[in-house]
Amino acid sequence: MDERAALSVVGGLVDAAGDDAAVVGDTVITIDMLHERTDFPAGTSYYAMGWRSVGASLSDVAAMGAAATAAVAVYGAPRFEEGEITAFVEGATDVCEAVNTEYVGGDLDDTQEVTASTAAIGETDRPVGRDGATPGEVVAVTGTLGRSAAALDAFDAGDTELANDLFCFTPRVAAGRVLADDAGAMMDSSDGLARSLHQLAEASDVGFAVDSTRVPVADELSNGDRLRRALTFGEDFELVVTLPEDAVNAVEKRLDVPLSVVGDVTDRDVTLDGDPLPDEGYTHTGVE
Amino acid sequence: MDERAALSVVGGLVDAAGDDAAVVGDTVITIDMLHERTDFPAGTSYYAMGWRSVGASLSDVAAMGAAATAAVAVYGAPRFEEGEITAFVEGATDVCEAVNTEYVGGDLDDTQEVTASTAAIGETDRPVGRDGATPGEVVAVTGTLGRSAAALDAFDAGDTELANDLFCFTPRVAAGRVLADDAGAMMDSSDGLARSLHQLAEASDVGFAVDSTRVPVADELSNGDRLRRALTFGEDFELVVTLPEDAVNAVEKRLDVPLSVVGDVTDRDVTLDGDPLPDEGYTHTGVE
Repeated sequence: MDERAALSVVGGLVDAAGDDAAVVGDTVITIDMLHERTDFPAGTSYYAMGWRSVGASLSDVAAMGAAATAAVAVYGAPRFEEGEITAFVEGATDVCEAVNTEYVGGDLDDTQEVTASTAAIGETDRPVGRDGATPGEVVAVTGTLGRSAAALDAFDAGDTELANDLFCFTPRVAAGRVLADDAGAMMDSSDGLARSLHQLAEASDVGFAVDSTRVPVADELSNGDRLRRALTFGEDFELVVTLPEDAVNAVEKRLDVPLSVVGDVTDRDVTLDGDPLPDEGYTHTGVE
Repeated sequence: MDERAALSVVGGLVDAAGDDAAVVGDTVITIDMLHERTDFPAGTSYYAMGWRSVGASLSDVAAMGAAATAAVAVYGAPRFEEGEITAFVEGATDVCEAVNTEYVGGDLDDTQEVTASTAAIGETDRPVGRDGATPGEVVAVTGTLGRSAAALDAFDAGDTELANDLFCFTPRVAAGRVLADDAGAMMDSSDGLARSLHQLAEASDVGFAVDSTRVPVADELSNGDRLRRALTFGEDFELVVTLPEDAVNAVEKRLDVPLSVVGDVTDRDVTLDGDPLPDEGYTHTGVE
């Protein structure tokens, strides 16, 4: 049984499963696990590991339109080196500061593989789920897509400084707060835009018609089929959101990050320039 | 660098580190990671894994004197079997129900070793830390000690039904709420009573004089040096708490679990029947 089929089992067992974070009253909570083999290519700094793993949970909070309240992490490793732990905690602390929240601690665990498990909580009285998209809205993404794919290229090329810099993304918490005011549905693009659109389509029972010329491919991404990698590589942790078209201009002015309208919410099917956009996504960044 | 030294590095870097859970306003949050090799001996059911891993985080919430609000988990495995995931989620759900809180979902992750990472949140306007013990108080523990040691014996003996039953402990959330009204300091006994006392002693700058005849050794524990195992094996997830002696009788009446006064808070040193009680604890339950 693959991970997606397995997730549907979890979804069937737990009412709250399905959005980027679970909602409990005015609190949202999320938990994630990242590890060396699949998420931290050779050359990933411990600082970037701390930043990125805690950032992944903060991105889930952002996707709900919530204000981040706190984050915690477990750092697991086969052995503990002071410099590595210090760097991990500094990265974790800095990504929290970048979104005006607090890294409040965590734990260590003896694991065979370097593993980071992170949780974050946030507050909102109006969480945005994946099921509220309506035909007639537009669909938009924050920032650019393909930075993590570019990071992997840089790791491969031995430019670890650039790669680690690209790995330290800013979770879109502030943008999520603004977008929540008008969003029909929202999620993060951690599995790639293509898969995110399919997930939103399924949850909202709608379709999407995407215009390839409007997809904001990251300048840093220079290799291969740039559009396809931007659409399917994932791990960029941008927000994918549906909005009424007439809200876009006002929303853009309030955002701290560019917003690109990439297409329309339709009745059915996910298309790119009129052709079916396959449900492909998330190429793990490590050796599988 | 061993795990305790490494934790002191984390403690030096993050203000909130040091208690069983971090405090953010009226919220407490904790994250834990358990895995097959060290925490789930051969024969552990997936139901018990779900119960126990989520229970470990709920125990941390209990140790702060907070009401549990929600829990989440990541279940990591090399492959996903529907029956295993279902059982894990049922265990996670049931332990939450046992303490009147909600399992609100989680995620799956592809890991080499079966790994459960869990987080829980709780609410309290008066969190109990480890640093409030005062000489003259008594020190007490909830329930009995040695159930997890007995579970390991049962796994070794092939009685997996008994072992899994012993593994499904009730997190002391209700007791923690009651004890918080009078507690000087509190933590859970996940690393064993002996180590817990040393940790409380260090955090509160006090000592403890424990009377061995008052240690509530679990009836289920029948093998080996029962007292020593009850003191040092750990993983029982009972609460260790300091209280004014004159509060004990009234507190006991309000508790849903037996409370055993095991000794006194003193100025310095941790002793058992007058002799030094070594800072030994937490024998991992799996093959190391």
